Amino acid sequence: MIAKLTDAERATALAALPAWTHEPQRDAITRDFKFADFSEAFGFMTRVSLLAHAADHHPEWSNVYNRVTILLTTHDADGLSQRDVDMATAIDALL
Amino acid sequence: MIAKLTDAERATALAALPAWTHEPQRDAITRDFKFADFSEAFGFMTRVSLLAHAADHHPEWSNVYNRVTILLTTHDADGLSQRDVDMATAIDALL
Repeated sequence: MIAKLTDAERATALAALPAWTHEPQRDAITRDFKFADFSEAFGFMTRVSLLAHAADHHPEWSNVYNRVTILLTTHDADGLSQRDVDMATAIDALL
Repeated sequence: MIAKLTDAERATALAALPAWTHEPQRDAITRDFKFADFSEAFGFMTRVSLLAHAADHHPEWSNVYNRVTILLTTHDADGLSQRDVDMATAIDALL
């Protein structure tokens, strides 16, 4: 079992991830990305897939042409965990 | 402008794509795929991305761990076109 963030930890984490939106219903964070075209969008997805594979922590995500939406939450924690914060930080670092 | 399939063409196409479901609201076809794990799912997505790039025809799709959902429709046709049928056929051929 992975620990869910406490309210204080969540507040600190979200403050450090201003591009991400908290979804209270699922206790998840989401971010929409827009690229020049499909090639650039899928290139980004490929880089994220490497992060996800290495961390064994996988996004819920969708793609429509040049747009990518990523949702992060931790099923084993039934909400946000440090693993989501680390993944969001690593994804932001790709840009 | 790309031609939307006629009702007769659509019926013939759907009969040849039994794994795909027609969504009348959007005049789209969808298929859910399940793989062994994320690695296999993303490998499949990478192969689909090559088809999409080559055809300049892009899916609306999502991935959650080992599951991939693909929706095909043609915005320029405001519904299903032969391009969707060709893409679905090519995707099926990957499996």
